[in-house]
Amino acid sequence: MKRQLLIGIDLGGTTIKMAFVESDGDIAEKWEIPTDTSEKGKNISNDIATSIRKKANESNIPIESFIGIGMGAPGFIDLDEGYIYNAVNLGWENYPLKEDLENQIGLPVFIENDANIAALGEMWKGAGNHSDDLICVTLGTGIGGGIISNGSILHGTNGMAGEIGHITAIHEGGAPCNCGKTGCIETIASATGIARIAMEGLENHPNSKLKKRFDAGNSLTAKDVFECAADNDSWAIDIVKSVTHHLGLTIANLANALNPSKIVIGGGVSRAGDQLLDPLNVVFNQYALPRVSDGAELVIASLGNDAGVIGGAWLVKSNLS
Amino acid sequence: MKRQLLIGIDLGGTTIKMAFVESDGDIAEKWEIPTDTSEKGKNISNDIATSIRKKANESNIPIESFIGIGMGAPGFIDLDEGYIYNAVNLGWENYPLKEDLENQIGLPVFIENDANIAALGEMWKGAGNHSDDLICVTLGTGIGGGIISNGSILHGTNGMAGEIGHITAIHEGGAPCNCGKTGCIETIASATGIARIAMEGLENHPNSKLKKRFDAGNSLTAKDVFECAADNDSWAIDIVKSVTHHLGLTIANLANALNPSKIVIGGGVSRAGDQLLDPLNVVFNQYALPRVSDGAELVIASLGNDAGVIGGAWLVKSNLS
Repeated sequence: MKRQLLIGIDLGGTTIKMAFVESDGDIAEKWEIPTDTSEKGKNISNDIATSIRKKANESNIPIESFIGIGMGAPGFIDLDEGYIYNAVNLGWENYPLKEDLENQIGLPVFIENDANIAALGEMWKGAGNHSDDLICVTLGTGIGGGIISNGSILHGTNGMAGEIGHITAIHEGGAPCNCGKTGCIETIASATGIARIAMEGLENHPNSKLKKRFDAGNSLTAKDVFECAADNDSWAIDIVKSVTHHLGLTIANLANALNPSKIVIGGGVSRAGDQLLDPLNVVFNQYALPRVSDGAELVIASLGNDAGVIGGAWLVKSNLS
Repeated sequence: MKRQLLIGIDLGGTTIKMAFVESDGDIAEKWEIPTDTSEKGKNISNDIATSIRKKANESNIPIESFIGIGMGAPGFIDLDEGYIYNAVNLGWENYPLKEDLENQIGLPVFIENDANIAALGEMWKGAGNHSDDLICVTLGTGIGGGIISNGSILHGTNGMAGEIGHITAIHEGGAPCNCGKTGCIETIASATGIARIAMEGLENHPNSKLKKRFDAGNSLTAKDVFECAADNDSWAIDIVKSVTHHLGLTIANLANALNPSKIVIGGGVSRAGDQLLDPLNVVFNQYALPRVSDGAELVIASLGNDAGVIGGAWLVKSNLS
């Protein structure tokens, strides 16, 4: 059979990650280029097309070997049309991304929200292990989410489905969130949220290891919290306990509604591994219905930064083959 | 065109509701029979088949006019096979419902969880107004739910999706729930939950109208609470406020994850109408993301007890035509 390749693209505000992906999901080539956001992002499509042609040429892959492009893009998108209403980070406004890129490269292009393609990637080749019912929670600077049910990404009525980060975890008196509300789980369990909780509590924990780290560097990260907790610092242990309590409860409530078989935890905070997963499992099992927790497995995402490009490739595969 | 009729069945522990439904969703005939749960429910299928033949005969409808049966059934079900692992209220255990009924009546049979067919009915002919992204919340003795996304009922990995009633609303110290957990929204916003809250607070509100009602009848219902609230009883008003706070927050958190266009509130408690909907909207708008609340409308279910049989008929239609 003729070799058929998929192109996966993960378009971010700083870099554009790209990959040539075999039809079984293995990455043949991957690379990235900087995102040129000058002049309202007008060069981005051309940069992508040029870079793909160059890489194909270098790799001796004829352009006819590619069957399509799948891309995760930020902003507010009409997914069917691949039309970007607004992507602040890129400067795009009312921009026909799909049409423009198809014209530039002569391949069919499929667009998905950037938060969702990582979930598709983890489902296809990562920790999701082909689960048809999967919740992906990405604990990074913010909290992103992607929900797959019956094998399909849920989009909701205007593309907002999966906004797990803005589920309210603290009903009253929670910290302000970028979204304008307060007490969102993003304010607690994102990397930013964990660091904030650590710093706000320093004066009440003057003898903690976290305080010593802060004094040495004048800042704290989520990584510091997990490291100090591993080093038996009681303030850091309390933070991990509180964070996993709120996150476990939020995930259990979602799982009671969605009954997933896999809950994939990704993003920078997930590097804490079992230090995160073990207490999360305890809380999850406490708040999920027994049959829901029996059917669900919490796992750490396994594809890292490749999840997006692999998810992009899956978009092509699921639409065309 | 030849008249094609659908048969919708809503199988409960006390009665079996049945209807002949036109292909546009209008009910041609509806009736009900008692559920015979004796001898482990062995007569139920036969009773259904006999009753359908009798009613068809009375209505002068040839059996060839029917294209299939769609049924909502309780218990733990393999939906693809229409196999009931366990339905405690009916006495069924490891019972091949679909196969048995198809043999008895000679029509294709489709089975769905009873909680979900009401959602399908409301989507097709009721307050859901053909929404592809809908959450149905049924406030009855317990709280049931059905979630439709991209036009399909979500089932989850083992048929438990939509168990909205067991989302934890009170994280610590909540009332015990039938599911074994505590603080489930069912313990607060079901008819039973509202009555419980009212009765538990009576001794602290000796001069309330609710206390007078209780003294007169030695019990209280959710209806009493809404009536006394409408009659300006401050204890009843507090209860409605607390119930709608917890329910609105629960629904908003779900909506942040699912981005529905319609949230249909049904069941006995929904008869409170705007008394329920108005405060619920305030809380919902407070906790849902702006674009999520902009896209969503909370509505009271409009089909009442017919939602199940109409949803059953839709099952047939969506599977066969």
